[in-house]
Amino acid sequence: MSTPPFSREEYARRTALARASMSTRGIDALVLRNPENICYLTGYETPGHYNFHALIVMPDAFAMVVRLFESPNVEEYTNFKTVFCVPDGIVPVTVLVDALKTLGLADKRLGLETGINKASLYSPVSEREILTRDLPRANFVDCTGILAAARVLKSDVEIEALRTAVNMAEIAVDAGIEAITDGCTENDIAAAVLYAGTKAGCEYVSLPPFVAAGERSAIPHGTWRGRSVARGEHVYFEVSGVHKRYTGPVMRCATLGPPSDLIQKMSDAMLRALDVSLEGIRPGMSGKSAHDLIYNVVDEAGFGGDYFTHHGGYSLGIAFPPGWGEGHLMDIGPGEEKPLQPGMVFHIVPVSLIYGTAGVGFSAVVQITETGCVPLSRYPRALTVV
Amino acid sequence: MSTPPFSREEYARRTALARASMSTRGIDALVLRNPENICYLTGYETPGHYNFHALIVMPDAFAMVVRLFESPNVEEYTNFKTVFCVPDGIVPVTVLVDALKTLGLADKRLGLETGINKASLYSPVSEREILTRDLPRANFVDCTGILAAARVLKSDVEIEALRTAVNMAEIAVDAGIEAITDGCTENDIAAAVLYAGTKAGCEYVSLPPFVAAGERSAIPHGTWRGRSVARGEHVYFEVSGVHKRYTGPVMRCATLGPPSDLIQKMSDAMLRALDVSLEGIRPGMSGKSAHDLIYNVVDEAGFGGDYFTHHGGYSLGIAFPPGWGEGHLMDIGPGEEKPLQPGMVFHIVPVSLIYGTAGVGFSAVVQITETGCVPLSRYPRALTVV
Repeated sequence: MSTPPFSREEYARRTALARASMSTRGIDALVLRNPENICYLTGYETPGHYNFHALIVMPDAFAMVVRLFESPNVEEYTNFKTVFCVPDGIVPVTVLVDALKTLGLADKRLGLETGINKASLYSPVSEREILTRDLPRANFVDCTGILAAARVLKSDVEIEALRTAVNMAEIAVDAGIEAITDGCTENDIAAAVLYAGTKAGCEYVSLPPFVAAGERSAIPHGTWRGRSVARGEHVYFEVSGVHKRYTGPVMRCATLGPPSDLIQKMSDAMLRALDVSLEGIRPGMSGKSAHDLIYNVVDEAGFGGDYFTHHGGYSLGIAFPPGWGEGHLMDIGPGEEKPLQPGMVFHIVPVSLIYGTAGVGFSAVVQITETGCVPLSRYPRALTVV
Repeated sequence: MSTPPFSREEYARRTALARASMSTRGIDALVLRNPENICYLTGYETPGHYNFHALIVMPDAFAMVVRLFESPNVEEYTNFKTVFCVPDGIVPVTVLVDALKTLGLADKRLGLETGINKASLYSPVSEREILTRDLPRANFVDCTGILAAARVLKSDVEIEALRTAVNMAEIAVDAGIEAITDGCTENDIAAAVLYAGTKAGCEYVSLPPFVAAGERSAIPHGTWRGRSVARGEHVYFEVSGVHKRYTGPVMRCATLGPPSDLIQKMSDAMLRALDVSLEGIRPGMSGKSAHDLIYNVVDEAGFGGDYFTHHGGYSLGIAFPPGWGEGHLMDIGPGEEKPLQPGMVFHIVPVSLIYGTAGVGFSAVVQITETGCVPLSRYPRALTVV
């Protein structure tokens, strides 16, 4: 009925990368349960992905196991036709077992993901027990993260999707800042953000817009709760645009009237960390080193330690709720030894939260180039005074 | 800093039910990973729940294992203080292992969930392997669904939260209907829905508003994609309000100008199914029988079979993204043998999707009473003609 969001050539490129990884691992078929991986290879999407979905990647074909109700989405969004449906009321993984038997895969080497962070949402113990019991001749191979190396290196069309998404987020935050008036509430501001983003073409988001004022800005992942904004207070924004399921976020702060000393100092530190990272981040550097670059600037200003417990950044790409990042694939964080490479895209997020007092952060979305990095965001890097 | 959304008495009631179930199963401690279960017992919440969270329920205390960054949310939303933090870059379940050792639980009977549908999102194979390896003297007991019996029977304060949420959804849909004009787009309508809901106090939603026009209304869980609305076409809405994390949805349709014969016939069938279910649904009836009641009306009108593949309804309560229902706890669907009981609350959803042509549905949120059911929604049950 419709078509996938990208060209057949783009999906062929991605699929070739997946099949090369399968070949390296000697896998006959790969079973993917994670909605980002499924969308990456096929274009398939639904907000109902929390119900059972599995993509079976074979050397020469795809097949999907989906909830019967969702099955028209295969026709709506993909170029293939082989679907095994799960009616409501059936244990879904039993349909996957039947599908693998029908496809002649019951005694083959089958790749499965066992879970890392967000990806772990889709590899439950209960399903594995049934697969192991009902496919006794299959050889299950842990393929957690098998698509990570492909997904973190963006093609030109992926970069453009991310740029479009970031620009939608900027439009949404602009509208939120315009909504700040003396006595307005967090809800008024969040409503303006959601309205403007959706009018600008933003798809449904994978995390809500984080809009919080005053001391509530220091609640981790805090959202609007009707707190009103008074003169001299600040509002924290972290808002995403979504285009073709690619998430482009923007984090920034604005004050109603001149900022307090604390908000000014925190803003100066975060903006300096952003400048330093835009100048210093380059390919070959480990994710950990890039994190240190950001963290150290914030820490020197007195806002590290307990105030800065977040990773300094994370990869961006296709996302479905309940999360918008790809930090589990490639992180700018304390545990990340892998090197940054040209074509990666990161959300750089210097943010400090002084719980009970104030949270302040400013971010940029950057593409790693051959020599350094360039921002996809057009935003001026500054504290806005309304 | 703040307080949980409900009284200490309400949490004591819920916790007593959980501990009674633990006692029945001879469990020394229960480890819950699912954000709805954690919020139900403690009030804890964060949109960042896709990162590691575990609530350890002991006979006389709670403890939580959370991502360090999220840990202020324990103080923000709960009445307890025992927190084990997971810094970014550490394998989170290893902190759970350490916490269980510290709490003297390493050789006890520990209840874990292994996963059913949405709840399966939080019981990955990778974590179980580490728990089994690192706690060799523990006795792990499958406690999947241990809180289901408690959660599906709503207290008065839960009913009120659901009623408030439904009313927010009605305000949001009203605004969406007002936004329908000749040539407007799905985005214009969805923007109006999100704006009005958020202004009315709606918290961030657990599924996006489903707003789609014309033939796009038949995309399962379809959302806005910029399609414009012409005179004679219809718009499908399924929109939730959220209050204290309780989700109250509303599904309905509106046409711009007089409806086509098909839309009128489909609407008549769905509205009749709704009337029949409001008259016929009563305690003691199985979830399957209630489903049949709804399905049969729609099927007799010619819109069953491939057009009606969804369950007829599902329990409502606390929800976090990526889903808003409790059908995995108590369903009005083909596989549900459990009986309806007074105090349960369901979203009744007669909806038929003729892929490529039209999707039409009308819903009600109903509370099961001693003798039948009563709607929490105030909406007139009718097709709106703009």
